[in-house]
Amino acid sequence: MSLLEQLIDALRVLPGVGQKSAQRMAYHVLGRGREGGARLATALAEAVEKIGHCARCRDFSETPVCPTCASASRDAQTLCAVETPADRLAIEQATGYRGFYFVLQGRLSPLDGIGPRELGLDLLAARLAEGEVRELIIATNPTVEGEATAHYLAQIARQHGVRPSRPAHGLPLGGELEFVDRGTLSHAFGSRSEVE
Amino acid sequence: MSLLEQLIDALRVLPGVGQKSAQRMAYHVLGRGREGGARLATALAEAVEKIGHCARCRDFSETPVCPTCASASRDAQTLCAVETPADRLAIEQATGYRGFYFVLQGRLSPLDGIGPRELGLDLLAARLAEGEVRELIIATNPTVEGEATAHYLAQIARQHGVRPSRPAHGLPLGGELEFVDRGTLSHAFGSRSEVE
Repeated sequence: MSLLEQLIDALRVLPGVGQKSAQRMAYHVLGRGREGGARLATALAEAVEKIGHCARCRDFSETPVCPTCASASRDAQTLCAVETPADRLAIEQATGYRGFYFVLQGRLSPLDGIGPRELGLDLLAARLAEGEVRELIIATNPTVEGEATAHYLAQIARQHGVRPSRPAHGLPLGGELEFVDRGTLSHAFGSRSEVE
Repeated sequence: MSLLEQLIDALRVLPGVGQKSAQRMAYHVLGRGREGGARLATALAEAVEKIGHCARCRDFSETPVCPTCASASRDAQTLCAVETPADRLAIEQATGYRGFYFVLQGRLSPLDGIGPRELGLDLLAARLAEGEVRELIIATNPTVEGEATAHYLAQIARQHGVRPSRPAHGLPLGGELEFVDRGTLSHAFGSRSEVE
């Protein structure tokens, strides 16, 4: 296999990249992006080698404990459990949340062999047992598996005397009623609140 | 900048990859594709370092002369000029063409500073002057700039007593008349051929 073919093949490891996109990417890098390509090669090699998981929150981290978990200025009484590092980043960027996080790196999915152990729930239980956390915000996705995971996490929280909570569900801001899916609309109607 | 941020930033060199996709790619590689990520890093570094241009056809090549140009079993009387390596690959894969190629690596575009020199047209002229080539198939894209380039290439061919030709334009196979663009339909009508 030629180097070009090897490159096209290797690019397909990226999500959403098929044969055709991989070809276009390879030609682009060789044609006008060699400097960027070399930088990407270095960044990839370093990231794969040096980025591990934070011992406290399981998020990706270059250091044994990630900067967020090492921060002294965050509120230790709230812990927010999310499925993925991307979810954590979205919450961190969009909200003013100043507590700590716990990244499950997945959701309960027995059929795929993903159980409590794979999600590091023993680590979560140990964290809650420390006694500092008062509220566990369970921000798993509103999917069947996400809800099942949330249910399980809520149980663990209650066992440790921690109050479990979930972000509100309802109509997205700026969305139009007409185009909202039926489940969301029905839920939003059921959870309506009085206008002050 | 953390290694993760560096990786996300570096991934944006790839065409069609914005901030959000780069983030998803980085998380995917770190989460479930570390082996593939390491392979991609190596493939990229090697490709960027070792792939140059073929001295005969200007296509990407690991060797001074690419395997196609070095082949003794191809027809030296036809040469096919294309804009990009991807065009060359498409023709090679779809047609039974067994002649040689010449890859312009672009098209005439004076506003972008791309003239005959940038397309290696001196190399093409020297190739035609060798006297072996009888026909130059000009497979540039049917865009304004591609047509201008084709016109220019045809002149060079005639100067060297080489017959210039272009692939046929018309209705795509399997296409429906109703959805074909007006220019193509009009051209196809003008170039209609008698049914035998």
